[in-house]
Amino acid sequence: MFLRKVVNNAKRLAPNIRTMASQGPLVDLTVDNDGVSIMTMQRPPVNSLNLDLLRELSKSLDEVAKNKSRGLILTSSSPTVFSAGLDIMEMYKPDFKRAEEFWTTLQDVWFKLFGSNFVTAAAINGHAPAGGCLLAMSCEYRVMVQGKFTIGLNETALGIVAPTWFMDTMCHTIPMREAEYALTTARMFTVDEALKIRLIDESAADKADAITKCKSFIKKFERIPPLARSITKQKIRQAPIKNLQDNRKADSEEFLAYVKNPKVQQSLDMYIQSLKKKA
Amino acid sequence: MFLRKVVNNAKRLAPNIRTMASQGPLVDLTVDNDGVSIMTMQRPPVNSLNLDLLRELSKSLDEVAKNKSRGLILTSSSPTVFSAGLDIMEMYKPDFKRAEEFWTTLQDVWFKLFGSNFVTAAAINGHAPAGGCLLAMSCEYRVMVQGKFTIGLNETALGIVAPTWFMDTMCHTIPMREAEYALTTARMFTVDEALKIRLIDESAADKADAITKCKSFIKKFERIPPLARSITKQKIRQAPIKNLQDNRKADSEEFLAYVKNPKVQQSLDMYIQSLKKKA
Amino acid sequence: MFLRKVVNNAKRLAPNIRTMASQGPLVDLTVDNDGVSIMTMQRPPVNSLNLDLLRELSKSLDEVAKNKSRGLILTSSSPTVFSAGLDIMEMYKPDFKRAEEFWTTLQDVWFKLFGSNFVTAAAINGHAPAGGCLLAMSCEYRVMVQGKFTIGLNETALGIVAPTWFMDTMCHTIPMREAEYALTTARMFTVDEALKIRLIDESAADKADAITKCKSFIKKFERIPPLARSITKQKIRQAPIKNLQDNRKADSEEFLAYVKNPKVQQSLDMYIQSLKKKA
Repeated sequence: MFLRKVVNNAKRLAPNIRTMASQGPLVDLTVDNDGVSIMTMQRPPVNSLNLDLLRELSKSLDEVAKNKSRGLILTSSSPTVFSAGLDIMEMYKPDFKRAEEFWTTLQDVWFKLFGSNFVTAAAINGHAPAGGCLLAMSCEYRVMVQGKFTIGLNETALGIVAPTWFMDTMCHTIPMREAEYALTTARMFTVDEALKIRLIDESAADKADAITKCKSFIKKFERIPPLARSITKQKIRQAPIKNLQDNRKADSEEFLAYVKNPKVQQSLDMYIQSLKKKA
Repeated sequence: MFLRKVVNNAKRLAPNIRTMASQGPLVDLTVDNDGVSIMTMQRPPVNSLNLDLLRELSKSLDEVAKNKSRGLILTSSSPTVFSAGLDIMEMYKPDFKRAEEFWTTLQDVWFKLFGSNFVTAAAINGHAPAGGCLLAMSCEYRVMVQGKFTIGLNETALGIVAPTWFMDTMCHTIPMREAEYALTTARMFTVDEALKIRLIDESAADKADAITKCKSFIKKFERIPPLARSITKQKIRQAPIKNLQDNRKADSEEFLAYVKNPKVQQSLDMYIQSLKKKA
Repeated sequence: MFLRKVVNNAKRLAPNIRTMASQGPLVDLTVDNDGVSIMTMQRPPVNSLNLDLLRELSKSLDEVAKNKSRGLILTSSSPTVFSAGLDIMEMYKPDFKRAEEFWTTLQDVWFKLFGSNFVTAAAINGHAPAGGCLLAMSCEYRVMVQGKFTIGLNETALGIVAPTWFMDTMCHTIPMREAEYALTTARMFTVDEALKIRLIDESAADKADAITKCKSFIKKFERIPPLARSITKQKIRQAPIKNLQDNRKADSEEFLAYVKNPKVQQSLDMYIQSLKKKA
């Protein structure tokens, strides 16, 4: 079709929009001079995803959906960890009301990130195991800082089964054969390995370089009418999204049954005691 | 199983069949001396897919299904364009009856090409954006002529969302991750890029070379019983086919709603005026 | 999540378990000193999968599910053939009761191998066409001995359509585009070709080397809690498994209709006569 650069152009963004900032204690959201939203997780020491951090992420994603920025870059304030994944303390002797909200908020964050109508990129400036890898894979583009950092869904190493939508998100990113091997062996990929398999799209010298490269990706959409772009993205991501929408309640119940299991609590107890001894 | 070269051999084709030709104004169908159907789109200047061209393609595909040739090669009479995709004039202030027939004929062409029981190959001798890329991807094999030609589903650049079955056809050809990136960024691949990602299977020096290479592909099936071959092809292509069969009406209605949208008509009007000024 | 090495560790295996052996005439099952089950097909000359071999495979797979070994390696006693696939004599003028049992036993073997809760690897020490390739692809890892051996689903060359679950198993292993090409052209891959496309994971100098490499793969799971591992595997393999579960009866009926077809019997008769003449 030859209908170039016309439809939806009304929605095209002005080159400079006012810099906005929304600073919660755990997530810093800034729209920088290039009109790009930078969302920084800042829950020391390792950005463990507890209910509070997830709530702030969810709220910040709502803001980006409204702030008319050119796109979102997700990153971390830590020099070594992007995000260590779900916070184990949300599962240890939890209040079940809170545990349920913890899980549904995690689902919300995924819906809002994986299915967003804005452009998303991850500047992965540190380790990204489990839930950290999920957040990165939910973006449309991934740039990872060179170094000893690793990324992967390593749940099985922890005796945990990644939920189906974690798996779906991985199979949307890398080939099925690679995903099965990675998921069952709890494989953590180095930057070079992740590049080769296309779990990440580019490597970077440092965080600033990663953000620059994410911006180059976002810039690719400068001349793409945003409505056509976002519907196209949501259509090709439709199967995993529909899959969780249809099974959302069962997925929550599965998580609750897991944390209510006395054996799981016993294991968590042992693990936490061993951490305390170390410390 | 050791049941070699026996079953269905009754259906094996004679090495030389009479040369047939069916020349419409817009599609030339010839069975050449090797018993291969050559279907040439010839609607100058750029093989825009209007209702008339689609009707002739549909009719020609019916003929190939009956002509007992060894297979089909789809190509273009233009030295620079394989097909520029859907003709915008079918969407601009259309008669709605005709617009509906335009769309259902496009669906028909896809069903007959993507789901054909005969072997199909595309000799891509020029640019193949959008609908041109769809036709090429619907074949089983793609050879593209080296040069400055490009191929891809670039609908988003035009403010358009490719229908789900366009996306399904792409995901049947290249990995999901590559398809998402290509579809959202409206990526047009050079020949080398298309080769690397396997969007095409081979490159060629010129049109004659492309046709020779397509014939080599078709020749691979010389000793494969054709019924087993065609059922196997249709089985592995079943999911996208069933998907459109089940949603055919909704898909047409979506297209009609699109062309009935005043904003779309306004955009088309602006675009056509700008073309006239250029000319 | 930071719940490392705790949950399910109760199920961790002791490093040395007693060596068990179950020797049927057609399948040798041994648990070796490393605690790995070695399942050897030994039906000369080419491990054609007849009802008796399939029954023994099915029974042996049940034993492995119970023997608490570290994992399974599937291999062949022949120096040149892993398995030649389904035995044509089970289809030639069959007793229909037996033909039905033949097919449902094949389905059982696939369910037990593809969906097993234990780790599986194939030491492919010879040719692996059709059903032989299916068995290898149903494992989680494939090591193939270098030489003139080939592997692939070549059913179409024999005038046969591979069942949907054969195709699903292939699409779980290699990209869709490659699977379509391989299935329709009846492609038999050399070891190098299979490696490149990741139809196999490693090549080996000889059978002993192949088994050593399979063991290295199995060893990767030493520190992975087995329950989390097996549920993860079964979840990512769920779609093909559910697909056959839901269509199991229709799949059997399709096979029976095939062998009841007089034309098929006539072809088989011609083929078998030609074999006799050769011999």
